[in-house]
This record gives sequence, C-alpha cells and structure tokens, in this order.
Amino acid sequence: MQVGRFEAAVTAFRQIVGEEHTLTDVAALQRYGWCTIPVQRNIPAVLRPSTLEEVQQIIHVASTHHVPVYPISTGNNWGYGSAQPAHDRSVVVDLGRMNRIIEVNTELAYAVVEPGVTQSQLYDHLQQHRIPLWLNPTGAGPSCSIVGNTLERGFGIGPNGDHFLAQCGMEVVLPSGEILQTGFGHFPGAKATYLYKWGVGPYLDGLFTQSSFGVVTKMGVWLTPVPAYFEACYLTCNSEEQLGPLIDAVRQLLFTGVFQGPVNLLHRNRVLIMLGQYPWEEMAGQTPLSESTAARLAARKKIGAWNGVGAICGSRAQVRAARQTIRQALKGKVDRLTFLSDGRLRLLRRYPKALSVLSGMNVPDLLRTLESAYGMMKGIPSEIALSLSYWRNRRMAPPAADINPARDNCGLMWFAPIIPMTRDGVFAFRGIIEPILAKHGFEACITLTAVNERCFDCTLPILYDKDDPNEVQKARACYAELHDSCGRAGYIPYRLGLQSMTEETSRDDVFWAVVQKLKAALDPQGIVSPGRYAR
Amino acid sequence: MQVGRFEAAVTAFRQIVGEEHTLTDVAALQRYGWCTIPVQRNIPAVLRPSTLEEVQQIIHVASTHHVPVYPISTGNNWGYGSAQPAHDRSVVVDLGRMNRIIEVNTELAYAVVEPGVTQSQLYDHLQQHRIPLWLNPTGAGPSCSIVGNTLERGFGIGPNGDHFLAQCGMEVVLPSGEILQTGFGHFPGAKATYLYKWGVGPYLDGLFTQSSFGVVTKMGVWLTPVPAYFEACYLTCNSEEQLGPLIDAVRQLLFTGVFQGPVNLLHRNRVLIMLGQYPWEEMAGQTPLSESTAARLAARKKIGAWNGVGAICGSRAQVRAARQTIRQALKGKVDRLTFLSDGRLRLLRRYPKALSVLSGMNVPDLLRTLESAYGMMKGIPSEIALSLSYWRNRRMAPPAADINPARDNCGLMWFAPIIPMTRDGVFAFRGIIEPILAKHGFEACITLTAVNERCFDCTLPILYDKDDPNEVQKARACYAELHDSCGRAGYIPYRLGLQSMTEETSRDDVFWAVVQKLKAALDPQGIVSPGRYAR
Repeated sequence: MQVGRFEAAVTAFRQIVGEEHTLTDVAALQRYGWCTIPVQRNIPAVLRPSTLEEVQQIIHVASTHHVPVYPISTGNNWGYGSAQPAHDRSVVVDLGRMNRIIEVNTELAYAVVEPGVTQSQLYDHLQQHRIPLWLNPTGAGPSCSIVGNTLERGFGIGPNGDHFLAQCGMEVVLPSGEILQTGFGHFPGAKATYLYKWGVGPYLDGLFTQSSFGVVTKMGVWLTPVPAYFEACYLTCNSEEQLGPLIDAVRQLLFTGVFQGPVNLLHRNRVLIMLGQYPWEEMAGQTPLSESTAARLAARKKIGAWNGVGAICGSRAQVRAARQTIRQALKGKVDRLTFLSDGRLRLLRRYPKALSVLSGMNVPDLLRTLESAYGMMKGIPSEIALSLSYWRNRRMAPPAADINPARDNCGLMWFAPIIPMTRDGVFAFRGIIEPILAKHGFEACITLTAVNERCFDCTLPILYDKDDPNEVQKARACYAELHDSCGRAGYIPYRLGLQSMTEETSRDDVFWAVVQKLKAALDPQGIVSPGRYAR
Repeated sequence: MQVGRFEAAVTAFRQIVGEEHTLTDVAALQRYGWCTIPVQRNIPAVLRPSTLEEVQQIIHVASTHHVPVYPISTGNNWGYGSAQPAHDRSVVVDLGRMNRIIEVNTELAYAVVEPGVTQSQLYDHLQQHRIPLWLNPTGAGPSCSIVGNTLERGFGIGPNGDHFLAQCGMEVVLPSGEILQTGFGHFPGAKATYLYKWGVGPYLDGLFTQSSFGVVTKMGVWLTPVPAYFEACYLTCNSEEQLGPLIDAVRQLLFTGVFQGPVNLLHRNRVLIMLGQYPWEEMAGQTPLSESTAARLAARKKIGAWNGVGAICGSRAQVRAARQTIRQALKGKVDRLTFLSDGRLRLLRRYPKALSVLSGMNVPDLLRTLESAYGMMKGIPSEIALSLSYWRNRRMAPPAADINPARDNCGLMWFAPIIPMTRDGVFAFRGIIEPILAKHGFEACITLTAVNERCFDCTLPILYDKDDPNEVQKARACYAELHDSCGRAGYIPYRLGLQSMTEETSRDDVFWAVVQKLKAALDPQGIVSPGRYAR
C-alpha cells in the first residue's frame, strides 16, 4: 500500500517535471545524501521542477497520494544537513532549476529572485550589467542559494548582513497548493511589495523561515548601493586578556553606527582552520591541536589571539570620521588596527615582498586572509570560509575551485548559539564550551559575529574526520553535550541541524505546540517538509 | 440566552478584577467610545485587569461563556478607532493598569514593559534613574502605550523609529489561555530573549501585530544609548518644484547612513495644522483652506513648501562628517539647511528677539516647530503632533496639557499608505489624493516619513468638524475614495482604521484566507478581538 502510493506519486511526478528531472537512480539519490553531519536519510526520489506551476502540481500530487515532499533551494546547508530532508522517505524537491533573477531595481536597491539563484549568479548578473549594487554573501560559498540562506536566517558580514532582515516580500506555494503573496504582494499592482517588509495585517513572512509551512518560490532581497567610499577595518589582539575590553568597545562602536552591518571577531583557532589543514604529522596523529602547536602556527602566520573585521562605508568624510572614531575607541585595546581600501589592497598585491620586510608582516598570508573578507563585504561571494570543512579531512585538501564539503565527505557540524554582547556573557559561554570541546578532542574555533548591537552569533564548527567512526562518535557526543550544556545555561542556537530538530521541538513547550497548531492549520496532512523545525 | 451568557460572564469577570475594575456604567462605557473617526461601537463592559493571571482568567471566562474580549493597551489609537473594539458587543479589556517597567538594561539598551506603560512613564523612569538611554516616541503623545503603538507597527522619527523592528521578545496570552513566550523567551533561562529578534524555528512575533491572535502582556523594546553628540537636521524648500530632487537626495543620503532612523518631510499644510486652528473667519466659514490663505499663513510663520527633519548622532567626528555629507548632497536643492544642537537651542531660547532680527526668521514660532521634533528624536514624548486634531474643532483649541482628541470630539481619520521613495511614486500618489481631498473639501496635509531607505509612510490626516454631520459625511466619503483610488493604483495603507478592516479583509484573497485559517487554529471560538484585521 505504502509502496503502491509512492509508485503512483512518482508516475505523476514524472508527468509534471519529465523523466530527466525525476531522479530515482542510486547514484543521484546518493548525491543528495552527501552530508557533513553524521545523519543519513533515506531519500526515495528527487524532483527538479523549473516553474511555479510545476511546484503547485507537485504539491497537488503529494497531497493526493500522501507522499511528503521536502523542498531545498540548492541544498548547500553545510554543517546543518546539506540537501537532506529532516525525515526519511521525503521526496526531495530541488528548486535549483528555478533560478531566474526576476528583477533588479537599481534606484531602490533590491532584487527579486527564485530559490535556485546562487550568490555567484546574482553577483555575476550585477557585474555584467554594471549595476552598482552589492549583495551580502554568506560564507557558504558562491553556489549557495540566496533564498535558501535567507529562509534559514543566515547572515554575512558587512551591509545587509542579517539576511532575513534584508528580505522583503515572498511568494509561497502553500501545502493547499494555493499561492500566498506576503507583505503588500497580495494587493494587485502594489507598489511597495519589495520596499516595505511588514505589509498590512499580521506579518506572516516569519512563518516561512526555519519552518515547514510552505514552499517559497520567490523573494525580494535588499541590496546595498555601492558607496562612494568603502574600507575594511581589521583589528588584532595578541592576548586573550584583551577580549573583554574589546567586546565592550565593539558594542559601543556598533551603537554609534560606524560599522555597516555585522562585524566578526575570530579566535586564533578559527583563522587557523581557514588557512590550512590539521597538522597531523606535527601532532603525531594526536588530537586536538596542542596549545604550543597552535601558538607556533599562529605566530608563523601572524594571527592574533583575536582578529576582527568590519565594514565602513559612506562619503569620504563619513569614512574618515568612522576611522577616527574606531581608532579612538580601540586605543590601547588592540595591537594592530588596519584600514584596507581598494588603493591599499592594490599596493599590497603589487609589492608583497617589500611590504613584508617593511611591515614585519607576512603579507602574502595576510592577503589571503584579508582579501576574502574584504571582497565578501563588497558583495563578492567566496569559498574561503568553506575551506575550514577540510581541516581534519585526511584524504584531501580543499580543491582550488568548486568546493563541496559534503561531496568530499568532510566532517563539519555547526553549533551556533546567540550570546549577549558582554564580557560576562562571552566568558561564561567559553567557560562551558571550551572544556567540552577539549574533552571530546576538538579545537574551539569561535567566531563571534555581531549580528546586531546587542548579541553575538557564535558559529562554532565541530570539525572531525568523517572517515573515522571513532571521530564521528566523538563529534556526535560533543555536539550533544554542547547543545545540552549551553541550553541549560541559556545560550540557544539561532539555527538547528537535522540531528537536533526532533529533540528540540518535542519539548513540552507552548511555543512548539503553537508551531504544531499552525502547521496543522496550513498543512493538515503534513506533506511539506515533515520534521523541519517541528515534531 | 445571549444576555444570560453575558450576565454570567460579567459576574465572573467581577470576581476576577473586582467591582471597581468592571465597568458597566453608561458614563464609563461612553468614555471608551470616544473616538475621532465616525465609527461608534456598542461596548457592553470594560475590564481593567492588573496582572497576567487576571488576563488569563478573563480569557478563560470569555471562552467558557463565548463572550468576545477586545484588549487595548491605553486606547490612544487616535484616528484609527481610539479605544473602540472592531466589532460591537466585544468586552474591552483595558490593560492600562498593567504598567510595570519590568527591566531596563543600560548596557544592552533595552526595556521590558507591560502594555500599560506609557511613553512618558518610560521617559520619566529613564530620567529619574539617570539611565543614559532614549526611547523613540511616536506622535500619539505622552500618554500613548509603547506596546500598543508597537503592535500597530507605528513609528517615530530618529533612532529606533520603526517600532516593530525595535521590538524583541513578547509574552502573549493565547485564546487558549496558555502563555506563549516568543523568540528565545520559551527557553528557561535564555540569555538573549531581548537581544535577538528571531529566536529559533518559525519567527512568530509578526503574528501578534495588527491581528487578533492573542493578548500581548509583555514586550522587549530596544532603546538608544545616548550618543556622544546629537544634532537635528532641518531643511526647507520654498518651492514645490524642489520636491523631486529632494526625494532623490534624501534617498541617497539615507543609503549612506547619515541619518539615524526615519526622516520626515512635511508639506506646508502639515506644518500649518500643527501650529494653529482652521482660520474660519479669514476663510468666511468656507472649506478647504484657499491657496492664498495657506500661502499667507505659511509666509507669516516662515514655513516652506516642504520642510524636513532628521537625526544625526555619533562621535563628534561622525556628526561633523554627517553634516558635511548632507550639506554637499543638498547643495542647491534646499533653501535653508539648519543643524540644531543643544548649544544652539539654548542660544535661540535665550535671545529669540535678537536672533529674529539677525536671521530674518520668526524665532519664537520657529522654536515651537523645531523644539518638539528635536525633543522627540531625543526620546522626549510630546503632544505637538496631536494638536493637529483640533484643526477644524470649532468648540475648542488644543488644551495646554492632557490633549485627548477623542474626548474633545475632534474629527481625525488617518489614511497612511506606503509610497516608493522616488519622484515618480510620490508625484503619481499626489496626483491621486490631492484632487480627492479638494473635491471633498479637505486640505492635503502630507507627511512623508522615510521609514527605511526605500519607501515613505505617508500619513495623511482627514481633519473634519465632528460636530457637523455634513462634514462627517464628507470625511467618510473622502476616506473611502482615497482608500479605493490609492488601492487601485497600488498605494496600500500600512495600518487600518476600524472603518476599513472588515471590507479590506473580506476580499477574495489567499493572504486574508490564510490569516483566517491561522485565527481559527489559535482562536477557534473567535473570542479575542473579533474583526481586528480579520473578517
């Protein structure tokens, strides 16, 4: 019966999207199961629709035959589950072929995109048409979907860095098959659909982020007009003791509005994992990285105990004032404060050796770290942040292009709780996580991203050798202990991997009960993304 | 039966909140019916609970006896319905006694307040305890609830001006009687409840704004740390022809981030109605105000065709740079550009006559207009914007204190659509509304508030003599025509008055159908705020 229903659905699906885009062969299904977290789902089929109508028809068939479907945008949800569905036996609906850039409005600085539009696709479009707008890329790389990252409420550094905040207007195929336009979009001819987030009446967009309430097929995203001047601000603290005063200073600077968008503070270890792989030989195969080796590596690459980066832009006068304000606020609190502009970057690129001698810095290495962050704040998607996935991959280093940590069987689980932007908050949090990571044999590779003026989003990767069952076990145990201990202390993740959704949402809790009620109202059969941020 | 049920409920209500706070006498019910829009609801009773538990018990009784309740915060929803419920026969639940300021966090710049906390109450609290934080007041006056205005997605000018954007964390009594904590609030001991808006899983807060899904009993609101330097920027254009270039320049300035929070552009007429009453004598009883009289009044008071105001703050260097950037961008586009600081304001106050002579301006009148906006951007609630309600009130002028336009039977209906921040958008919009207002005998008193970088919230008051049945009729017809014509052209209001909720939400439209589905899921009996932004 179960099988008969499924077969009937697949036959109908084939009629909708065609033979070519109905994948049921083992190789294809395996590809969609590639994953950096230790979770393996049973995927019965993958559909690749290319239009809104096809999505509607898929939903109709899924509903008729009671076969759950699980939409993905491009499936690059690295460290949280990649392309895999939350539950076994969900048919994956890959929206990658729906990749039209429907509109770019230069004057009002927004784009309207489908879920398959990748970061690099939008970037290339803006470049090719000489449109003076920046997107805000996330670290998941050029091939990552803009819609997908926004629906997961991901973020980047620099202007418009909180992606859900910069989202305006959605088109959603509901589990009923109806098409919902949020905000003002449901008013025929509305002029402000992509300009004003809230619309009139209840604000519904939030329901379709981190949820299973519908299939988002179109979305407005706010972009940043290229400013007259842009500089990246880099700071380095050589000692751990400087972190406390640095946090206070950064919070105060954020409140004065000198930085555009989120600022990153990277722990030494976080920079190390972005610049190379685990030094297995030097460590004689032992994990985690010893303090002495880490210190030696960091010294060689001139990496500070804490390393910060943020964007400043505006008129020449505004950028100058921002620089001055930052210098004053960080005086005596950091060991190095550098402002990088296009001009200075050209100089560094041209004379790396001379400047290395002059500055006493390793300029080529410095450039490698600086440039990608610099570019990302200017809207250039980069693979740099992704290379960390290969830290403990013994089989291979990150490829020069087309990085895909899931394909390459890298071991990466993200744990990303929100921490108050206070010294006490950060210190208490570190006091919990660092012993847990050490106990399980992992490095604490913290980035603190100031997603607003009041809190950090701490992205903490658990990097393990996925070929080693013993390390897989440790990673799993480490994640569970981090999640539990931090949860008890009130440090809650902003986003969940597939491994924790069911547990989290099954707590006896009014919030999750309300989510279930809403789910039942919109999707009584439970055919869209069962288990996604829900029981 | 109906009556019996109601009587039984009132008896139970009395036991919950006490005799004193269960109002059923005609005078009290009349007071809650005071309203500036031509809508009169039949209010059977008013309850004034003082605790969360009392609210829960009220919901329980309402549910048991099928008696609908309609929560208000302070009921100062001037121009949209004041304290009145959306439907007849709803028991008003006045949350004004729930007025605790539960927490103010100076370091992280937020407050947690109950619905009865007024703008002046929080302001006084900050002053008394010398807490260096600013709230962002809305124009509805000192006695307006912070929670109420936020739930209606109201706004102010200056930092944190989009009130829903600056809201973080809610406590909601659901129609089931359960208590929902949104964001991270439902995690015991969560540290970032008031620091990070989105929480984890679907973002639900939006559901409880402009809706009927629950009773919000607590809310976090973000405040602004008092900046090192603050200046108000005032601009004046003497001619209508300057508006187009001004709009472009303001949009570009907003994108560079020189202004903190929303900027206001006020049409001459809008300033006039804030500074005096309708000149009945001069106009020999005729309406609307003639162009020649308006021009004469404006000349006397030195009001430009368009008048702008925005906040700039930060370090001394940042404020200087902002001033310079604004000057450059507005060069040749405005006739007067003034930056007001505490120092300059002191000077104006001390030597008004000398400065009038020197500057050729009417400094006392100027001060009256400037000071209130200046103060409001620094977090000081003011009644100035409220005095416009008395424009056509023939019985009385705005009282010197305790302005209450509903009590004083002022005629005010707000029509507040969102307009793209482009010349074409604004001109097309004006081309629609100005003939309609003129046809019905009203002045076009536009304020364009740049609620973000991409659109204006145009607040347009229809000011009428509520004692004159003929004018009431005209106001009603004018509103309907504005609403219809603007709707057809795609200019949709960000907020609705009681007069248009049923009509708007009854359209055959997936969005409103989804709203009804969600309503049914959370409130199957329809006991909370029936008709509020719903059918």
